[in-house]
Amino acid sequence: MRVFIVHAHPEPGSFNGAMTSEAKAVLRAAGHEVVLSDLYAMGFDPVSDRRNFLTVRNPDRLKQQDEEEYASEQDGYIPALQLEMDKLAWCDLLIFQFPLWWLGMPAILKGWVDRVFAVGRAYGGGRYFDRGIFAGKRALCSVTVGGPAPAYSDIGIYGPISSILFPIHHGILGFAGFTVIEPFVVYGPARMGEEARAACLASYGERLLAAGTAPAIPGPRVADYEGLVLKAALRPKGGADAD
Amino acid sequence: MRVFIVHAHPEPGSFNGAMTSEAKAVLRAAGHEVVLSDLYAMGFDPVSDRRNFLTVRNPDRLKQQDEEEYASEQDGYIPALQLEMDKLAWCDLLIFQFPLWWLGMPAILKGWVDRVFAVGRAYGGGRYFDRGIFAGKRALCSVTVGGPAPAYSDIGIYGPISSILFPIHHGILGFAGFTVIEPFVVYGPARMGEEARAACLASYGERLLAAGTAPAIPGPRVADYEGLVLKAALRPKGGADAD
Repeated sequence: MRVFIVHAHPEPGSFNGAMTSEAKAVLRAAGHEVVLSDLYAMGFDPVSDRRNFLTVRNPDRLKQQDEEEYASEQDGYIPALQLEMDKLAWCDLLIFQFPLWWLGMPAILKGWVDRVFAVGRAYGGGRYFDRGIFAGKRALCSVTVGGPAPAYSDIGIYGPISSILFPIHHGILGFAGFTVIEPFVVYGPARMGEEARAACLASYGERLLAAGTAPAIPGPRVADYEGLVLKAALRPKGGADAD
Repeated sequence: MRVFIVHAHPEPGSFNGAMTSEAKAVLRAAGHEVVLSDLYAMGFDPVSDRRNFLTVRNPDRLKQQDEEEYASEQDGYIPALQLEMDKLAWCDLLIFQFPLWWLGMPAILKGWVDRVFAVGRAYGGGRYFDRGIFAGKRALCSVTVGGPAPAYSDIGIYGPISSILFPIHHGILGFAGFTVIEPFVVYGPARMGEEARAACLASYGERLLAAGTAPAIPGPRVADYEGLVLKAALRPKGGADAD
């Protein structure tokens, strides 16, 4: 497997840092190739606008998707983005390693997506979800959260982790064609003892070695939709929209 | 009303730009005060780490929340963040104006939250949700999306807009104590004619003038939870966690 880890934590000594070190070691020992983008270490700029491009399609008004389409045709991305696009195209397994901040990705990672997942490189021309550009590749969110596991359940105050990660799993990874596997979530690493941390890292290593065959989170099949809406014959009786 | 608009779009001529102009004009004409943070125009840096602080609590290892707690005690935030914190404390109504990118906020806005919603300024010490620091203030997401409305429903390929905005409504605004009102969502402004755009802006103006009394999206009451989990007596019969 060719594994691409996008790592988004400002402190190398954090548990996120330990997880990425473990991932590199375990995967390489098993003969896999690993490439890492350590966004804080790279000083990655997460702001998306004209700075993404060497090319200019319309100098008067910025329409980001039009500029992306044009840059994709003309190879007009700045080298810092083209490099990330190349890593994405190369990998079989993409890992997002991040701490959950405000029930989402740190901005440095969100902006990596905003800039790198460009029209013509990650989607466009009817290529999305199971018809997506990255169909056949797998993706995993490896996430640390501050609270205990029950707080991120149906009866937890923050809501279920699946709902929290829905925009990332569905709207980013699934949309671009990735087969998304169950996230690896670490609850409250700051409150763990050394032994629990070691066990957690070992368990993460096992999950990674099985990532190539782990079951996928179901996503939409484009053929089931018409005008971006589920075909009438496929809707649950009573109407899914009547809930 | 004191209204604080945080605006996150790189193109002033965009529909997002028109919406914020409309908001300023309509609200000021009705006698409200309006303050705007135009994040792209400000060149706002969305990356959160030690750069947030003038103070240093622990130089050896960055624990962001500990540094925030310390900076809140010592008034140790850089002026660019302190200014935003002051605007937040000042306002009665907070508006996030943004285009939905990858089912989330543009990174420049996510990072504004990551940096400005700091421990001691936006939460901490048992102050969250209905006990939150910003309890009594209201918040509204004003969002443009690329697709048509049915695509963001229970039978739409992207999923319901309420699920898409859940991490923002619940995890950011609700968590910090804001009363969150229904979002104002504009579907596919790029495909609208002049007349439809004008009608949409007028409708947005009406929504804003009613924002002070508009019904709220329900959020959790901290008193209903124990250890961040809903008290047993309050769970639906059969168990909400059995779904």
